[in-house]
Amino acid sequence: MSEVHAYAAQSADADLKPFDIQRREVLPDDVKIDILYCGVCHSDIHVARNEWGNSMYPVVPGHEIVGRVTEVGDNVSDFKEGDLVGVGCMVDSCQTCDSCKDGLEQYCEEGAVMTYNGPDEHLGGHTFGGYSGQVVVDREFVLNIPENIDTKATAPLLCAGITTWSPLRHWEVGEGDKVGIIGLGGLGHMGVKFAHALGAETVMITRSPEKAKDAKRLGADDVLISTDPEQMEEHAGSFDFLLNTIPVGHDMNPYINLLGRDATMVLVGAIEPLEPMHGGGLIMGRKRVAGSVIGGIPETQEMLDFCGEHGITCDVEMIDIEEINEAYERVVNSDVKYRFVIDMDSLKES
Amino acid sequence: MSEVHAYAAQSADADLKPFDIQRREVLPDDVKIDILYCGVCHSDIHVARNEWGNSMYPVVPGHEIVGRVTEVGDNVSDFKEGDLVGVGCMVDSCQTCDSCKDGLEQYCEEGAVMTYNGPDEHLGGHTFGGYSGQVVVDREFVLNIPENIDTKATAPLLCAGITTWSPLRHWEVGEGDKVGIIGLGGLGHMGVKFAHALGAETVMITRSPEKAKDAKRLGADDVLISTDPEQMEEHAGSFDFLLNTIPVGHDMNPYINLLGRDATMVLVGAIEPLEPMHGGGLIMGRKRVAGSVIGGIPETQEMLDFCGEHGITCDVEMIDIEEINEAYERVVNSDVKYRFVIDMDSLKES
Repeated sequence: MSEVHAYAAQSADADLKPFDIQRREVLPDDVKIDILYCGVCHSDIHVARNEWGNSMYPVVPGHEIVGRVTEVGDNVSDFKEGDLVGVGCMVDSCQTCDSCKDGLEQYCEEGAVMTYNGPDEHLGGHTFGGYSGQVVVDREFVLNIPENIDTKATAPLLCAGITTWSPLRHWEVGEGDKVGIIGLGGLGHMGVKFAHALGAETVMITRSPEKAKDAKRLGADDVLISTDPEQMEEHAGSFDFLLNTIPVGHDMNPYINLLGRDATMVLVGAIEPLEPMHGGGLIMGRKRVAGSVIGGIPETQEMLDFCGEHGITCDVEMIDIEEINEAYERVVNSDVKYRFVIDMDSLKES
Repeated sequence: MSEVHAYAAQSADADLKPFDIQRREVLPDDVKIDILYCGVCHSDIHVARNEWGNSMYPVVPGHEIVGRVTEVGDNVSDFKEGDLVGVGCMVDSCQTCDSCKDGLEQYCEEGAVMTYNGPDEHLGGHTFGGYSGQVVVDREFVLNIPENIDTKATAPLLCAGITTWSPLRHWEVGEGDKVGIIGLGGLGHMGVKFAHALGAETVMITRSPEKAKDAKRLGADDVLISTDPEQMEEHAGSFDFLLNTIPVGHDMNPYINLLGRDATMVLVGAIEPLEPMHGGGLIMGRKRVAGSVIGGIPETQEMLDFCGEHGITCDVEMIDIEEINEAYERVVNSDVKYRFVIDMDSLKES
């Protein structure tokens, strides 16, 4: 075991402050990683502030982790010291259920072990995330990060990236499809980049006309302002797929009206009650509403490789760890383009 | 044109009474049918009473029509006098859009012409349904009824049958699947028969323990009482497909919890606002909620042929046309096992 510097919330209403945590010694299947960068996801805030009611303190958030391998266990041959690697939202799963066998560990029937605030079967207690100097992770949950793209801007691929990539791939979005990305934030900006790179006609759907220019820079072919009834009617029934990244409960009916026959809208943000949906909206046109959460390890590696090949990264704002509490306030106010990433060198200096 | 006896509602709050309507003369592509039987669908009541706000009076309801051909147009070679035929919910569509070309006329982009209360492009005004002595229909919307099964019990196949058959087939329900049919009424009882005949492990899901015996007689392997939290928890995450026939807005969350990963619940009854759904219920397990309405002409014929081969009919209670107003009250009170069918001889006598 080794003591590691971290930043933690000690209770629901406390700021994040320096804290020391333990990391386990390197077991035969483990990879030890020196953390270079960690992205800031809205979930970090929900857990730090116990907004989902299941937080275990101290909470060390962070599940968009990029770093370099410093040590590997005796059974590990596919990673070596110096490799650029990533860790996302999960650090373990049963590896034996149908979902795990299908490479969909996020749907593990025993429940995947989350990177932070999950049960830690090695040290007892709960897992600690990436707002820290090092992490030790089973090799099955370690990913290769392409060396040819901006490393600090790859961190949010591990959550914001895979959360949008997974449904776009699962529903086989590609050339010839008209795809709408609803909501332009951390998830939405990656949805636009991926849908565009996959060859789809990509439409940014947003309430905010001022986001149009940026949406087009990110790869949107068109922008649809959802508060304009005329525009919404013009696009009615025309979409093959909608990726809905709105992070809160909302009225889905206007978006369902945009779907064509047999088309699907996938929710990836709103893990909370939605406003009442009209049954007729689905029935008339055999439409579908589905959900999707993050992605499995094989598809995460597929996405990272795709990003390397296509030069895709996240749009990030870099911060030092001391700025985390201010960054949280800005995330809550949707005031970030489009993801904060913590430079972990600042933790070593602090 | 010929004058035909019918039963009609003259306004939203009037009983159905005898009425004379016009049927068009037989055009080159038309089939003229002497109506033997007509099923009573809950939609008939919604339209007779203007509960959907779009009724055109006089309303002659009825879209579960079975009869014998009495005359065919010059271009019609696939039907001849004396053939046993059926007409369902639609009597025309554009025949040129993608949905029509795919044999899914119910999703016609121009809007299919409904058997009653639709625009009548031949005589002007609106279409009249099957509570009448005769009907004249374009051959594209005429179906062959198997001669080897009880004719009067085939009528509700044209709506209740196809409404449940279409999603079961579209989502490829069959052997090895655990399928739940939610709600045991006109639609639900056909859902149970079809799911069973298609080889699925069929579970009737109902609030009413007293329906268990009948559900098993219809083909259910098991009965799940939805008001029993223990039973609902025991079946959580275990269904491959759910067919939801509940005809009114309701809380879908307990049913979504029954779905396994990647499984779908299809709504076929509730053409109205539903209670709020929790986004997490779909997101955790990549689950789907979809809708489906009736079915296309090719799949309706496929269902009728399947019924002939497997000896499947609806469970019906026969009435004379003079009993229609009393039957409506019983439908509204869910007091019918499981569909009323009008013997149209009673109209000729009346």
